[in-house]
Amino acid sequence: MRRDLRTAIATVCLSGTLDDKLAAAAEAGFDGIELFENDLLASRRSPAEIRQRCADLGLSIDLYQPFRDFEAVPPDVLAANLRRAEHKFDVMAELGVDTVLVCSSVSQEAIDDDDLAAEQLHLLGSRAAERGLRIAYEALAWGRFVNGYEHAWRIVRRAAHPALGVCLDSFHILSKGDDPRAIRAIPGEKIFFLQLADAPVLPMDVLQWSRHHRLFPGQGDFDLTTFTRNVLDAGYRGPLSLEVFNDVFRQSDPYRAAVDALRSLVSLQDSLRLLDIPAAPVSTGYAFAEVVGETNLAGLGFTRTGVHRSKPVELWTQGEARVLVNANGEPGAIGALGIAVPDPAAAAQRAKIMLAPPLSRTAGPGEAPLTAIAAPDGTEIFLCANDDWLGDFVPTGESSPGAGITGIDHVALTQPFDNFDEATLFYRAVLGLEPGATAEFAAPFGLVRVRGVSGGVRLTLDAALVRRGGWAPAVAEPQHIAFTCTDAVECARTLRQLGARLLEIPGNYYDDLAARTGLPAERIEVLREQSVLYDRDSDGEYLHFYTELAGARVFFEVVQRVGGYRGFGVLNAPLRMAAHHDARVLRT
Amino acid sequence: MRRDLRTAIATVCLSGTLDDKLAAAAEAGFDGIELFENDLLASRRSPAEIRQRCADLGLSIDLYQPFRDFEAVPPDVLAANLRRAEHKFDVMAELGVDTVLVCSSVSQEAIDDDDLAAEQLHLLGSRAAERGLRIAYEALAWGRFVNGYEHAWRIVRRAAHPALGVCLDSFHILSKGDDPRAIRAIPGEKIFFLQLADAPVLPMDVLQWSRHHRLFPGQGDFDLTTFTRNVLDAGYRGPLSLEVFNDVFRQSDPYRAAVDALRSLVSLQDSLRLLDIPAAPVSTGYAFAEVVGETNLAGLGFTRTGVHRSKPVELWTQGEARVLVNANGEPGAIGALGIAVPDPAAAAQRAKIMLAPPLSRTAGPGEAPLTAIAAPDGTEIFLCANDDWLGDFVPTGESSPGAGITGIDHVALTQPFDNFDEATLFYRAVLGLEPGATAEFAAPFGLVRVRGVSGGVRLTLDAALVRRGGWAPAVAEPQHIAFTCTDAVECARTLRQLGARLLEIPGNYYDDLAARTGLPAERIEVLREQSVLYDRDSDGEYLHFYTELAGARVFFEVVQRVGGYRGFGVLNAPLRMAAHHDARVLRT
Repeated sequence: MRRDLRTAIATVCLSGTLDDKLAAAAEAGFDGIELFENDLLASRRSPAEIRQRCADLGLSIDLYQPFRDFEAVPPDVLAANLRRAEHKFDVMAELGVDTVLVCSSVSQEAIDDDDLAAEQLHLLGSRAAERGLRIAYEALAWGRFVNGYEHAWRIVRRAAHPALGVCLDSFHILSKGDDPRAIRAIPGEKIFFLQLADAPVLPMDVLQWSRHHRLFPGQGDFDLTTFTRNVLDAGYRGPLSLEVFNDVFRQSDPYRAAVDALRSLVSLQDSLRLLDIPAAPVSTGYAFAEVVGETNLAGLGFTRTGVHRSKPVELWTQGEARVLVNANGEPGAIGALGIAVPDPAAAAQRAKIMLAPPLSRTAGPGEAPLTAIAAPDGTEIFLCANDDWLGDFVPTGESSPGAGITGIDHVALTQPFDNFDEATLFYRAVLGLEPGATAEFAAPFGLVRVRGVSGGVRLTLDAALVRRGGWAPAVAEPQHIAFTCTDAVECARTLRQLGARLLEIPGNYYDDLAARTGLPAERIEVLREQSVLYDRDSDGEYLHFYTELAGARVFFEVVQRVGGYRGFGVLNAPLRMAAHHDARVLRT
Repeated sequence: MRRDLRTAIATVCLSGTLDDKLAAAAEAGFDGIELFENDLLASRRSPAEIRQRCADLGLSIDLYQPFRDFEAVPPDVLAANLRRAEHKFDVMAELGVDTVLVCSSVSQEAIDDDDLAAEQLHLLGSRAAERGLRIAYEALAWGRFVNGYEHAWRIVRRAAHPALGVCLDSFHILSKGDDPRAIRAIPGEKIFFLQLADAPVLPMDVLQWSRHHRLFPGQGDFDLTTFTRNVLDAGYRGPLSLEVFNDVFRQSDPYRAAVDALRSLVSLQDSLRLLDIPAAPVSTGYAFAEVVGETNLAGLGFTRTGVHRSKPVELWTQGEARVLVNANGEPGAIGALGIAVPDPAAAAQRAKIMLAPPLSRTAGPGEAPLTAIAAPDGTEIFLCANDDWLGDFVPTGESSPGAGITGIDHVALTQPFDNFDEATLFYRAVLGLEPGATAEFAAPFGLVRVRGVSGGVRLTLDAALVRRGGWAPAVAEPQHIAFTCTDAVECARTLRQLGARLLEIPGNYYDDLAARTGLPAERIEVLREQSVLYDRDSDGEYLHFYTELAGARVFFEVVQRVGGYRGFGVLNAPLRMAAHHDARVLRT
């Protein structure tokens, strides 16, 4: 691996006191930080002590920020602003940081006069230069008079001071829909700093959007690759630095967040082809999915076809679907997923570079060496060739006719509240799975957001929109494995005969389905009889049914895709959640 | 009490399955519900069984909703829409509900043609009338062609069918800034339904605002009193019904939410002068504040002036400040507040009508009967004349010179995440305290929102913006009592001499304060020496300092208000939180 560019993170991205933030950034592997002034103010450490602490941790301080409302003001305000500046320069000297961020003014005292702004920024540049410092001037998207990067650059050019340059922030530029191509017209040495943030496209006030909903690159809707390419094409060689204000990251474990953050920069560099690392694997499907504890797979038409040579694990198969049943671990949950990739060693190397936490595995004599990593929700992800690992299982010779299940369609993993956006990036960076749009729906116990990631294998990731409190049912939201079949109604009928406990869907649903879709009455009756749910989009249909909970946190789905239907029946998820809840309540 | 109008709540306001929602609405005391279609679809109960369940619970079903995208469509779409309508009429007949909500269309298939809309709504009215049903047509704020209530009414008037009227929703009208006075031009009998929702003014897309951030009346920024008066002036006599989509309410205890909801309607009727109940009390200040467990009040210059006749409670006083120390209860927390009101009996009667949970109290022989209610965060609120209760304490005869504390400025209560908006309404409805604006600030472990409520007494209510997870410090956010003094610096100096453990504020804060404010250097040094924080607004200054934590969840503040400063030094709260955290970490 080759890293052309240094990485940095603004302390405002992370939760905790300054000590927590510095420790997290260093432990994750960042090269430097942007020091957010409020973090310094609340710290017991003096600036000199912070400098020492950063040095001890191997972190450079690349930027001090922010300095607000400086330019284009009347003389008396200018005097006060220079006093503020000199104080910041004192702090910077003690910190050993040479660049300060000056945001375009939002003050009511500012005047709409580019010449005056340039003149005063020139003066500020002179004062900075006397101290060996630099000013990076940034256009806030909501700046009073200066809110575009091209405008900020015009003022900087007019000011013409060597200690004055621009700071480019991807959020301020892309949130406004500004074209980043004009960045190439700025000489690289005048781009003093680069701040990177992604975001979902949200129809809201840009200030609120910026302060609450920024994301790390690769987690949102912005094209950070093209943006950053323009900045590098201009000749910028400073750090890639993250400045992400996000309500969730602000309160989550800062080490976890810092790893997520650094992964976003590694992934960005990969997308820019700056790294000499293995390409994202092109998965050929699920090698297997593993559930922990007893589950009635026989009732679903599966056959126990193998027993592991050294571990308490059974292999159950039906069609192309392979499910491992592991007697060890937290019972009633999905423990692991096997992702079939053409070159497991290369995929493992990439996973390591993408900061995927490795899991140690002990392979028995003659068993296939398997690389496992931990997904953000703790699920073990095995990177394996599709068939090598099968040799670890002694065939039982058992067989059964099956029930029409043909393979694994997708696996649905409920994410911890803090890790929803991290998960999307994880699967994209490590496994090359591309995220779809995020959908929201009203579930019985609160809103839920869900996002599919796919490419060879399909996963759905969901999480509560508001972290669940005391009222939500004590049992965590379950995960599930969705199997494919070619005839959902027939499959459901067969499974009932085999004794599977399928989830009963209320009759009101079918009455409404008939009115809503105009499907023929006899078709509705067949669906109703088998509790098969229905969805359709412009490309096809989706027929699906669920089992009752097969353990504390796991159940199964069987789906039939007709035509080019691309979704996951999210519309029907609240029904399923209510029915699972009712079944639980009725049983207790 | 007199109730002119029936109360109802849409099931979509509450968390849980339909059974949970119905139980909560009934238990809280609502007269009826609006049945949200998705709640019916996910229910195991048939419409007839839901009707029976509601009857058993004493709830009427006042509205079935919503029916979307009906009007102004080409003939083939109309046919499908009428099929949908007939199905809904079937369900309504089984439910025994006579009115359905039809929202103005957002469909791409709709045509901008009021005559066509009127013609098709007339047809729908005829179909409804054949079944003895009614259509309430509502303009969504984001309707494709019809998005204002006056427009909807023009179409309804043009359609001229007795079974067709309008539904008025305060959110759709007030969010757009539409003038509600024109409502008086609509004949009352043509207003088929009234939906009430408040909201904070938020600069965001109206659809997102509506679906996530509605509040119960009195919790937001809308003037529901004037709005509702216009509707009543028009002659409407149907139920006051709440339709509130709120991310927090959707996942919180539905009974708590339903009580909060009903309180909002009682309070609204009070503001409309429809109820014959005692006016909100005009408090004359804090009679006392009670802390539980041992606290070093002597170190703060307080004197133990009394001992309770029958309970393990001591009275500590200084100036006008009275603090009770209760040996019983959860130690290290604020247990109770005594609010001095002119007529405690009347205040207690009002509190009961406003659904404040009563707390049973046992008064010993000869002791003052005290009425206590539970605030949303569990704090006990005593409604008392200022001095009567003092007779319950045997004077100790002890005295001390004091340290300059003169009274109680405010009490700061951290609210449970689910109850922030409930708390605002509670204090307004029960005690007549008016809320100020909600502020947000970045605290070390996540964003915090805070709101003052005041009138005779001042309280600040704060809560996390995102419910805290595992990373946040295990100790709950503390509460505190803020005392007044006339010279904060002198008071801090005296308290240090008395041995009080005051919170040390980092030096970086004072360096920045000097640069930021231009206060004279000698003044800064005095503040720094005593760890006194500083804030100012256009009307005055605020000097304040804190103690270290005096128990698991409680500390004290001493404040000096200069001039007309009206805030609470919120700017400095993150400093205080970091310092408390650091002090805790250093001690352990």
